[in-house]
Order: sequence, then C-alpha cells, then structure tokens
Amino acid sequence: MRDPRFDILFEPVKIGPHIARNRFYQTPHCNGMGNLRPQAHARMRGIKAEGGWAVVNTEHCSVHPTGDLMPEVLQMLWDDGDIPPLALMCDAVHEHGSLAGVQLAYPANYNGNRLTREVPLGPMDRPVSGYHPVQVRAMDKSDIRNLRDWWKAAAIRARKAGFDIINVDSNFSTIAFQFLSPRNQRSDEYGGSLANRVRLLKELIEVSREGAGEGVAISVRLIVDELFGDQGLRVADEGIEAISMLAELPDLWDLVVGTWADDSPTSRFAPENDHEPFMLGIKSVTTKPVIGVGRFTSPDTMASLVRRGVLDMIGAARPSIADPFLPKKIEEGRYEDIRECIGCNICVSSHFAMVNLRCTQNPTIGDEWRRGWHPERIGPAKSEKSVLIVGGGPAGLECARALGQRGYRVTLAESEKRLGGRVTLEAELPCLREWLRVRDWRVTQIGKMPNVDVYLSSELSAEDILEFEADQVVLATGSSWRKDGIGRASHRPLPLSSLMPLYTPDDIMRGRCPPPGDVLVYDDDHYYMGAVIAEKLAYEGAQVTLVTPAADISAFTLNTLENIRTVRRLQGLGVRMVTHTGLNGTDGDKATLYDVRTGVETILDTDAVVLVTARQPHGGLFAELSDMSGGPAVSRIGDCEAPAAIFQAVWSGRRFAEEFEVGATFRRERIDLAPSSSFDLVP
Amino acid sequence: MRDPRFDILFEPVKIGPHIARNRFYQTPHCNGMGNLRPQAHARMRGIKAEGGWAVVNTEHCSVHPTGDLMPEVLQMLWDDGDIPPLALMCDAVHEHGSLAGVQLAYPANYNGNRLTREVPLGPMDRPVSGYHPVQVRAMDKSDIRNLRDWWKAAAIRARKAGFDIINVDSNFSTIAFQFLSPRNQRSDEYGGSLANRVRLLKELIEVSREGAGEGVAISVRLIVDELFGDQGLRVADEGIEAISMLAELPDLWDLVVGTWADDSPTSRFAPENDHEPFMLGIKSVTTKPVIGVGRFTSPDTMASLVRRGVLDMIGAARPSIADPFLPKKIEEGRYEDIRECIGCNICVSSHFAMVNLRCTQNPTIGDEWRRGWHPERIGPAKSEKSVLIVGGGPAGLECARALGQRGYRVTLAESEKRLGGRVTLEAELPCLREWLRVRDWRVTQIGKMPNVDVYLSSELSAEDILEFEADQVVLATGSSWRKDGIGRASHRPLPLSSLMPLYTPDDIMRGRCPPPGDVLVYDDDHYYMGAVIAEKLAYEGAQVTLVTPAADISAFTLNTLENIRTVRRLQGLGVRMVTHTGLNGTDGDKATLYDVRTGVETILDTDAVVLVTARQPHGGLFAELSDMSGGPAVSRIGDCEAPAAIFQAVWSGRRFAEEFEVGATFRRERIDLAPSSSFDLVP
Repeated sequence: MRDPRFDILFEPVKIGPHIARNRFYQTPHCNGMGNLRPQAHARMRGIKAEGGWAVVNTEHCSVHPTGDLMPEVLQMLWDDGDIPPLALMCDAVHEHGSLAGVQLAYPANYNGNRLTREVPLGPMDRPVSGYHPVQVRAMDKSDIRNLRDWWKAAAIRARKAGFDIINVDSNFSTIAFQFLSPRNQRSDEYGGSLANRVRLLKELIEVSREGAGEGVAISVRLIVDELFGDQGLRVADEGIEAISMLAELPDLWDLVVGTWADDSPTSRFAPENDHEPFMLGIKSVTTKPVIGVGRFTSPDTMASLVRRGVLDMIGAARPSIADPFLPKKIEEGRYEDIRECIGCNICVSSHFAMVNLRCTQNPTIGDEWRRGWHPERIGPAKSEKSVLIVGGGPAGLECARALGQRGYRVTLAESEKRLGGRVTLEAELPCLREWLRVRDWRVTQIGKMPNVDVYLSSELSAEDILEFEADQVVLATGSSWRKDGIGRASHRPLPLSSLMPLYTPDDIMRGRCPPPGDVLVYDDDHYYMGAVIAEKLAYEGAQVTLVTPAADISAFTLNTLENIRTVRRLQGLGVRMVTHTGLNGTDGDKATLYDVRTGVETILDTDAVVLVTARQPHGGLFAELSDMSGGPAVSRIGDCEAPAAIFQAVWSGRRFAEEFEVGATFRRERIDLAPSSSFDLVP
Repeated sequence: MRDPRFDILFEPVKIGPHIARNRFYQTPHCNGMGNLRPQAHARMRGIKAEGGWAVVNTEHCSVHPTGDLMPEVLQMLWDDGDIPPLALMCDAVHEHGSLAGVQLAYPANYNGNRLTREVPLGPMDRPVSGYHPVQVRAMDKSDIRNLRDWWKAAAIRARKAGFDIINVDSNFSTIAFQFLSPRNQRSDEYGGSLANRVRLLKELIEVSREGAGEGVAISVRLIVDELFGDQGLRVADEGIEAISMLAELPDLWDLVVGTWADDSPTSRFAPENDHEPFMLGIKSVTTKPVIGVGRFTSPDTMASLVRRGVLDMIGAARPSIADPFLPKKIEEGRYEDIRECIGCNICVSSHFAMVNLRCTQNPTIGDEWRRGWHPERIGPAKSEKSVLIVGGGPAGLECARALGQRGYRVTLAESEKRLGGRVTLEAELPCLREWLRVRDWRVTQIGKMPNVDVYLSSELSAEDILEFEADQVVLATGSSWRKDGIGRASHRPLPLSSLMPLYTPDDIMRGRCPPPGDVLVYDDDHYYMGAVIAEKLAYEGAQVTLVTPAADISAFTLNTLENIRTVRRLQGLGVRMVTHTGLNGTDGDKATLYDVRTGVETILDTDAVVLVTARQPHGGLFAELSDMSGGPAVSRIGDCEAPAAIFQAVWSGRRFAEEFEVGATFRRERIDLAPSSSFDLVP
C-alpha cells in the first residue's frame, strides 16, 4: 500500500485543455531510434505511458530542412510524410491513458545541415558548433517570418499526428534560446534588451498555438540559467524575468539549466535534485505548472518538491529510462522495486553512437520492439530445466534474476564473500558509490524468489560444475585488467621492466596501491577508469601524471558528458594530464613515452606505473567445460566472454535469460522502396 | 577523336565468367547513402556505369549482425530483406552495360556492434578500435565455421540481388586481413606462419564461390603492404608471397596499401599514382587481372601503367566521384572536359558525417536521386532571361557555367584581374596547387560557351548593377577572414592590442606576412587553413606556435584523413603545437591563452599573431540591392551568403543554376511502416 505522503504525486494536473493524470512528466530525451527507427521509438514511449508517466514527450523534433541535425537520430516534421511515424508514438502513448508531447525545435548554430546542404540560419553570422566547415547566416526579417511559418506548419502536422502538447524548445542548441541569450548581439528589435531578445520565443509560442488550435496545450522548455557567468543568461536576473514576461502565455514551463552536460551530470559529479537552487521562486511569477529535472528516483524528494511549492510536476528523462514503471511502483507502494538510475549516462552515449538507447540498469530499453523485451515482463519457463550460474557480478545477477522471473530453478555461485563482482569493487573508487544500485536492485529482487539460490564464497572448478548436474551452466566469471600493456595503442606486450613497480586497477581496487611518490597512470582504456584511479591516487598524496594516446582525457566520456568535469577535477587535484601520448616501455625508474602521431619519444621519470589498458576475459572454465564430452550445455555471458562496460554485462545476462529455450528475435526497420513513398517533396 | 595511344584503355578484360567492356574499374567506396538511402545509392552507381566504368562496386557490405559498423552508413546482406535495396543498384548498373560488384566484409576489430549489441569477433581478445568500451572475443573453431556459413549465405544473397562480381574484402578493417597480418598472434592453424594466416582468406574465397555459383566472378581486395614496419605485412616479403599462394584462386586482384589514410592521401601529401612502387611485380605471380588505385585522372598515366604491365585495370574511387564520365570522356577524346579530382577528400568526410557523398569538383554527387541532378546534363532554360553574376570564385564560376549550359545569357563580372576567387588565392599556399582544377575546369567550359561573357577587373557598385539591367542578379562576392577573434571559441570580439601585429589568412595569401620572429597562429577554424599558414610561415623562417581550442590540430582533417600527416609535417618543420587552448587576448608582446576545459591561463611571448578564426561574408551589395525597390531579382550564393568550405560554394552555385525558374526538389527515403515489412528476423 502506498504511503499517504506520496498521494500528492498522484494528483491530476491541468495542462491547458488537458488533465495529466498524475505529476510524472517524462521530459524530452534522445534515444537513438527517432525518425530512423519509428516503430522501436513508439514502443519505447508506449511502455513509459504503461509505467505511469502522465506525459510522455518525444525528443528534439526539427521543424524544417534548414534546421537539420543529421546524422543525429532525432525527429522531424518537415512535411506530411513525417506524420505517420510520430502518429505511431501518439497511439502507443494514448493506449495507456497518457498525454503525448512533441518537442518542436530549430537547431540554430548547431545545424550543420550536413544532410540537406541548406545554409544554416541563426541570430548572427557565426561558425556552426563542432568543426564542420560551415557558417550560420544571420537571419533577416524575412527569415524570421519564414521560421514562424515553418514552425506553424510543423505545429499543424503535430496536431495531425495526434499530439496533446506542443513543446516550444528553447534549449541550448535551439533558435529561441540563442535569440534570448545575451550572447545575441543583434541590433534590431530581436536583439539588445531582454524584451527584444524574448520576442522570438513569444512569437514561436503564438504560432504554435495558431497551428495547433484549441485542443492542444503549448509548453515551453527553457534554460533558466546558462551557467556561463556574465556572458550568458542568469536565473537571478534575466532568467526569471524572461519567464515573468511570458508567464501565462504557455500552458506549462519545463525548466532546465545550462548545456546538456550541465543539465544531465553523472552521479560522479552531482547528486539527485541538483537543480533545485535554480528553480526557487519560479512559481511566484507564473500560475502555470512548473516542471524541473534532477535525476529524481526518491519519492521523498519528489513529494517534498511539490509540497514545498518548488515544482508542480516531476520531470525525468534518465530515471524514466532506468525504470519506465517508476510512477506505477510508487503508486503501488513498491518502493524497493524501483530500478534506480545510477547516473552513468551510458544512455546519453547511445545518442552519440546513433543507436538504440541503452541503460546499465534497464537492459530492455531500446530492445522493446526489435527483440520484444519488456522492462517488467518476461516469458515463462519452457521446461523444468535447472540452471547453474557461475559468478555473481552484473551479468550473473541479471541472468539469475531474469531466469528466476521466468520460473526456472536457478543456482548462483559466487566465489567471493560479496555479490556484485566488478560493481562492488568499482563502487569503492571515488564517486562511484551509486553504481551499487546495479547490484542492490538485483539482490533485492532475487531475495524474493524461492526458485533462486545464492551461494557466496563458492569457487567452482570444472569438476564441481559437472558434479552439480545442472541442465544448463552459464559462466559469468568476469575479467582482469591486463598487466602486459596490450590495449588499443599496442597490439603486442610492451617491454616492461620488472624493476618498475607495476599496478593495474585490480590492484588498486583491492587495496594494493603504490607508495607515495610519482605515479604514471597510463590510460589506454579511455572510459572512466583511468581518471578515477588518478583521482584516487591523488587523494592519497601521489604526484600523478595521467598519460593517454587519445586526444582527450577519458575520451569516451565525451559521450557521457563527463569530459570537462573530469579534467577540471583532475586539474584541481594537481594531476598532470598528457594527451596524444603512448607508452613504449619502462625501465627501473622511468617510462618511455611517444607522440602517437609523430612517434617522437620522451622520457618520464616515475616511481610506479598503473596500466589501465585492456582486460583479459576469464575464459578458463569455458575452455575446460567445452572440451569435456557429456557435460551440460555451457554458455558464457558478460566480461568473461568479452570485457565491456557494465551496461553490456547486464544486457548480456538479460539476453541469455530472454532467449533461453526460446531463441532470438531481431527485427529491423526497412526503407520503403515503393515509388509512391519516394516522391515526397519538401516545400 | 581519341588518341590511339589510349585505345589500350578500352580493351575488354576477362573477369571470371564475365567480360568487362574496358579497363575502368570503380573500386568500392563509401558514400553516406548505402543501405539507409538505397534509391539515392543506386542512382549514383548507375550514373557511374553510364559514364563508362566497366565495373561498378558497392562499398563495404557486412555479411552478419555480429559484424555491425553502425551508425556508419554502409551496406549489409544480413537476411533476404537486404536484397531488394542492392538489387536496385544492380539494375541501375546493368542498364548501362556494366558489371556490378559487391564488397563482402566482416569488420573484425572495428565492429563495435553498437546497433546489434552482439559480441564482436576477431582473431584475438582485444579492444575494438575507437573508444567504444567493448572488446572483441577471439574466435574459436566454431566461430570460424559460423563465419564461413554466414559469408556463404551472404554470397547467395548477393547472387540473388544480381551481382556479377563478389569481392572478398581483405582490407585493413576486415577479418581476412586481420588474420593475415603478422599482428595476428594466434597459436592454432589460423596463426603463426603465413600459410596459416592466409587460411581464412582462402576459405572465404572458396565459400564465396560456393555461394555465388557458376555465373559470378570472385575478386579479392587486399592490402599488399600495411605500412607498419616490421609490425605489419610488407609487400616485399609476405605481401607478394600471400598473393602467390592464392594466385589463381580469385578471378581478379584489387590491391590497396595500408590504412584508409595511407590508401587515399590528399593532394597536399601525395601525387597521382603514389602506389605504383607497391604494385611492381604483382603481375608476375598471378595471371588474373590486377587492379590498383592512385587517384588517376591522367589518361597518359593510366595507359602507361597498362602498357608497362603494372596494372590490368585502372581502379578509381575519388576520380570516379569527381567525374563519373571520366572513361567516356577519354573514349571520346574529350580530355579537357575531364573534371579532375583535386584530392581534397571532402568526399571521405561525407562518410564520417554519414550523409550523402559530396565533392568539391562534382556538386551533383549525392544529389542524383533526391534532387534529380546529373553530372553532365541539366534542364534547358525556361526563358530568355539574362543573368548577371557578380564574383568569379568557385560559386560564381559554377553558377555561370551551369546557367550557361542551360542556355541562359550570362554575364560574369569579377573584380580582380584573375578568376577563381579564394581558390586562386589559396592555391598559392603550400601544396594546394591542385585545387586550381576547380577554377580551371570551369574556365575551360565557360570558354566554349558563346552565351557566357566574362569581365575581369570589374568591381560593380549597386548602381552599376542596376544600370546593367539584368533580369536576375546573383551575388557571389565571397568573404574575408575576421580580424576580431570571433570564432567557435569566442562569441564576442577579443581584446586585441593594437600594439601586437595582427594578421589573417587574407594578409598572408596577399603577401603581407609577419617579419621573421615568433608567430602565434591561432586556429579556431579547424580545417586546413591554420596548419597551411603555419607551414608557410615555418618555411619562411618564423618560429611558429600553432594553438587551437580543439583536442586535435586541424580537427576537421580527421574527416579528410589528413590529420596525422599534417601533424608530422608541422613537427618536421619545428612548429610547436598546442591543443585544448583558446586565446583570451593580446598585449604588445604577448598573448594570453587559456585551457578551454579548465580556464587556467598561460602567457605566450610572441612577436605577431595570425588569427585563423571565422569569416565575415561580404554582404554589403546584397543589403543595398535588397533595399532598392524596382530593381532586379537578387540572390546570393557561396561564401557571401554563408562562408563554408569550397565544396559548399560550388554546390551553392550549381543549386542556383539548377533551380532557377524551376524550383526545388528534395526527395527523402522513408521507413516502411507496413507490419509486413517489420517482422523480418535475422537467423
């Protein structure tokens, strides 16, 4: 039963002509499916509605070919041919009684127009963001008139698709905000004073309403603070003033902060509800519902924000990905069943990889349509077969939980005293504590399953496994960090002197750290581990030099929005950072480095070296068991098959469970080759 | 009439069961259309056949979902649903009497499998290339067996699609080569000796033939030298030996060198026919036709290579993009009509941008289907209207030429004494000489048109233009490099001391260079200009420091495969290179720099500063003419509308000419939403 203190979260909210059935609002978010994989997209959004989100939004939806962000996978409403894919989503959301919203956008300064080759338009003559060799042209009056017409036409199409809410996007990358920002230095009535700079946003709200007509609500997604100092919009002065100027014009305010990286920090860098300071006082200038985000997973935090009059609705993107059923679980008082977002932003990396959304906590996201997976349901067992899972890390835990949910008899054997494998180990490193949620949610769920037995401190040999006589064995025995230097930059072992103290992340995580002195952390892994090890050693007093062959420190974290914060933190800790540099070998007291572009060598004096390179899968048991005849069926999942990020291990465990005795499904969307589909023209 | 010395190029060549009608072979190349835009792809390939290429190949075509390079836009033959898009291409190629080839590939070590989430497979347990946090799993015997089965199934589908030639790709990124390279350190019969390492390639040739059956030829695309020193395959020892081991097994050898960047250098770094040293002697170990590439545009070079027994067929990717009609023009003796590739690799950047192929010389490429453009044909004039084009740079020249081709009366007025605008200026910079082909081809064509008049040294005012009484005015007046520091890193003018000598690329190109001493070249443009200016000043004796806010020197050149060569050349010239660093301002004798990630400032003593930042469009005439009532219709094209790379200027001129009095066409391909299309399963 639900605690009455959370009842407030299930009050209906009026949004223009509509009533949202509760206070849960899935804010727009990218998903790597978009217009390119519309059936997959619609199914994912529909499951959000099924899980209780009263409002479910699309991602960025471009209104015109001159605002083309391709190849990013997003939405568009350029002509009527773009209506059917979005109508699919509206139907899926309406089926579960939720409201569907579309985020209309025009990506000025970000629109390389690489696909359409159109001239990008924006407030001023400036290069486009990124390095594409194209500049934006400053819009004149007729361009602004055109934009209003395009926007209105897109609003008409949005209504035809079935959307209940049209969101006017005034986010960092879009035209309305780029006019609103004080960095707009136009000298006409669209620049200068705040009243002038807010004009375009006002006009876009107006034409949205004209285009959408009576039955559709209009919302605004607005940055209230650019976090750009006196070069940008600040909430305390112009941010809140801009909202008060337009206070009653839209039907809802959806508020964000800064760039995407500012708005969606990972748990390494910010806690839940980090935006609250920027939201205070907004409700005093408008009677319309106010929405904010903050990676909310705690019902207490949510209820408190509503009760204290900070927010009217709880906005969420990442928590709705990690658990599409978060609202329903709170509604039903099933708090411990909430699969809490760990704040790793691997979801964000899907956008940059331009592939279906993925999530460390929710392995079903992005696979709802193409593989037929569901975050809460899974097919029943096909037999009475027993399964032995060897290894209780992220892959083993998810596999045991999902097979248990199907009804199989499962035994999970973990060699260590604690479950969680690498997650448990890594969570001891600086600022990775929230990642334990990967382990804890699964351990909680398994704890409720009478058909799943867990044994700790149970290292099994191939003979032990045979003796167990399970019908199916699943190996999830993980991997170790390599000690030989092989990684992306080096295909062969490096000449590493036995006189140079050598460490890997496994050593550091198990408490074997270098003594105080100079330490070279060599990062040829490129995700978080190199930086986190450097951070830990710096806290402990080492003089750390972090060296990487990549052009950026922790290069993959460009995809998780953590790159700048990582470098700032390391710089604050006195870590010296060297990019474009590989390791050629070590002597007793020095390392030979080289510029990966030119090959020019340099020498670094150091007392110790930590290799953060590649990992060696623990494949021994698999090889032994595969060679035995007459044994059980043996499979492997997670890092012991191929070391990867944690999301992949969880997914791998889920996949085995989904496909066990059923087989694989993999649907793809196809291009329509019928001539009738091809001859659409954009006006 | 054709010179008889080129007759040899039009001899037929036997390729297995087929006869190629001449020696022109369009090698596989990426195009940003692929499986995602199959109708656009088919039309582009069909025009190659129309232009006389006897063999027209696809790009990389993956045989299985475990070899997934998404989001790169390529081909795939994963199931029968992938046959129809490729059958479109075969039909288009056959329509013009050419042979269609498909490049079957399995991208080991490069296959992040980001879309499919499958475990990547390869010769050894290693990280995938790039920074995606996933490792490859070493293939065991059953994996190799599976691969042969997958490959054979793809060959069967290729035959069903209508291909005449199946190419077994043993290129850098693919499995056959990764087994062949000495970097394969397997200890079984697929590793160690060359005979072992060549085994997988041999097996893939065999299963290709089994799958494809009698009527299909089998070719091999092979790297003959890895250019990796003793760490890689070298032509002199194992390269030529590998070919002799398999000499008569395939029906054709298509040979390449090193990585993509090695194989396709730009004209800044390598001349035509740079591969010849690696091709010598290959024909002595096989009787099958041998093909090589080398950005061939000279019929003399081509004929000489055949006559001297180096090659049997002339392979080309880039020259076939710049001029799809290159063979036909040689055949007809129209040598001066050949639109020669300038070797800028903007075509390659389309692949990384994942959008339709683009080309500086051929603005129609990638727009054949969606806009209905053709490299050799254009619609006739719709009226007797006269057109005045102001500015004879790349945009103005292409616009004049294409309008002239349509039959309009065109006047082109150039303010300077020479045509070519920025192309003429930039071609004086180090190693950009070949870019003059952009100007020269157009000047040659215009020279043949009685309906196009060209006036040099003709600077026109708004009044002059009005007096000219053209029906249509097109402004193509270009742009200037900014002197205020505004660029990508800075939205506002920088505080630049008048005591610090300041230069822009316009100064340098017009001969106003800093005197000997320390020069800071500040590159916030990120394409070639910053590096080329640094190179020029270094040649002239300056002590150059090249500073950029990007993580890489000339960051955009990562997309044109020039990055490493650029850094090596600058390093050789003693240029100091500093990344991740912006410019905050200058004093009389120093510049204040800052780390763009942390904001930490540093001071650099310097005698002069060259700003390579953004450009200011020359928009004055447009503003003046737009304000006048009763004047002619006025449009603008190229850099004076929005400064961009040269390809965009040429395209912009072409676009005006294509759409003048006709209007725009823009077709897009759509996802098939019919349930019948969606439920394909990959086995």
